[in-house]
Amino acid sequence: MALMTNTRTVRIEWGDCDPAGIVFYPRYFAMFDASTTALFERALGMTKFQFLKHYGSVGYPMLDTSARFVKPTRFGDDVVIETRVAQIGRSSFEMAHRILKDGDLAVEAAEKRVWVARDPVDPDRIKSQPLPDEIVRRLGGG
Amino acid sequence: MALMTNTRTVRIEWGDCDPAGIVFYPRYFAMFDASTTALFERALGMTKFQFLKHYGSVGYPMLDTSARFVKPTRFGDDVVIETRVAQIGRSSFEMAHRILKDGDLAVEAAEKRVWVARDPVDPDRIKSQPLPDEIVRRLGGG
Amino acid sequence: MALMTNTRTVRIEWGDCDPAGIVFYPRYFAMFDASTTALFERALGMTKFQFLKHYGSVGYPMLDTSARFVKPTRFGDDVVIETRVAQIGRSSFEMAHRILKDGDLAVEAAEKRVWVARDPVDPDRIKSQPLPDEIVRRLGGG
Amino acid sequence: MALMTNTRTVRIEWGDCDPAGIVFYPRYFAMFDASTTALFERALGMTKFQFLKHYGSVGYPMLDTSARFVKPTRFGDDVVIETRVAQIGRSSFEMAHRILKDGDLAVEAAEKRVWVARDPVDPDRIKSQPLPDEIVRRLGGG
Repeated sequence: MALMTNTRTVRIEWGDCDPAGIVFYPRYFAMFDASTTALFERALGMTKFQFLKHYGSVGYPMLDTSARFVKPTRFGDDVVIETRVAQIGRSSFEMAHRILKDGDLAVEAAEKRVWVARDPVDPDRIKSQPLPDEIVRRLGGG
Repeated sequence: MALMTNTRTVRIEWGDCDPAGIVFYPRYFAMFDASTTALFERALGMTKFQFLKHYGSVGYPMLDTSARFVKPTRFGDDVVIETRVAQIGRSSFEMAHRILKDGDLAVEAAEKRVWVARDPVDPDRIKSQPLPDEIVRRLGGG
Repeated sequence: MALMTNTRTVRIEWGDCDPAGIVFYPRYFAMFDASTTALFERALGMTKFQFLKHYGSVGYPMLDTSARFVKPTRFGDDVVIETRVAQIGRSSFEMAHRILKDGDLAVEAAEKRVWVARDPVDPDRIKSQPLPDEIVRRLGGG
Repeated sequence: MALMTNTRTVRIEWGDCDPAGIVFYPRYFAMFDASTTALFERALGMTKFQFLKHYGSVGYPMLDTSARFVKPTRFGDDVVIETRVAQIGRSSFEMAHRILKDGDLAVEAAEKRVWVARDPVDPDRIKSQPLPDEIVRRLGGG
């Protein structure tokens, strides 16, 4: 089965942009975070609030990410964000994102995240957990 | 002459953190952006507002960045951010950042940026420019 | 003619929320800013980038705002934001926003903004300008 | 005993500013949130992480806030934020903030917050709690 993909359209807002008039690049990472979540939500048929609860997780923090900024975008642009599952490990998984503006690549990014739960020994800490089989299957792995 | 370094201390705020209680990772990139600026400001003895005006630039947008998240940080943590110039090209330059929490590495990141000005032909666009010699020298290059 | 209204649906994201698991309230103001812009864009049939350029403006910064937070919202919620023009002055105008969650009021806010342009004498400064008649008319005033 | 006050200096960053080159106003609320926390931390001699744990709270979400923007600030400005406790109720309290730039008032804001804990019946919900006597005393009330 193919690894899952998801596409969404995002409006670049005034408040995403800096004094040069283009997106302040940390904002792209917030868009990627929401894009990874959108793919999970579609795969699992639940909101993130619901699936974290359902699987006893507190999220999928970032381990590693990289991004290449090819073409600036600015407020008023409607960009397309293509997101795909790139690899699924035991506790970690990789996603890839591409932002297209008028069909041209504006940004591309890769990320590796880890599925975590509260540490039962010390609930102030988080601890990696194996990805539930059902999630692996829904993302197109296994 | 050695390439310049700068260190600053940053308080992690409640508003930097997500429902898992740890920093929402896009916020780290905002901290790195301010860290690159802090180094430039120290090198040039001017605020960014002043030096952009002085050199007729509109900034140094990101071309490429990567980050590795080793240890989570959370609100109330005072972290140290070490920033250094890693390489200086004709129009572009590379920086490296390390975030330390209680002396341990929490995050490390690399970035490549480009010095830009308004495009004289179309002021809605930005265009790469050679880094002024004086800046290269102050950053420890040349 | 009635003063204009606009409604949009916004997904509350993980990155909008704080360690209590609810929206970090400054994020609501970013949503209101985008909601005012959405109303203007619909009224004028142009993106903000386009209409600022068209009318020689640099935006409509905030003079005054207040908000009342009635019910928390959290990631995964799809909220409805109702925005209306409340009053139109010579250079300033007032907007009102209501955020509804499952039909119940979650947040209500009022804001007063001013239409500005670059100061011709000192382009580093901004200066209030009379709202163009065409905008007043399109917003339902005059 | 006088109600407590606290003052801190904040550097306005590039990433706080919008395409008009001035602070994107939602960022001021993030600064006020951190200013309220700074006052609490000084009053209690603990970080927010520590005092929430100590008192079994999940924070002090906003009930009501208003702000007046008198003078724009921009990246490179070092502003002073003066924060004071304005009133202390049973579960709620009011704070007032003033941002000064070169000694002149730039922004003033008022806020009313409520002390909350997880609802023991439904831990997904938060519930107002009486402010601990010790906190009331440390803030200068009672």
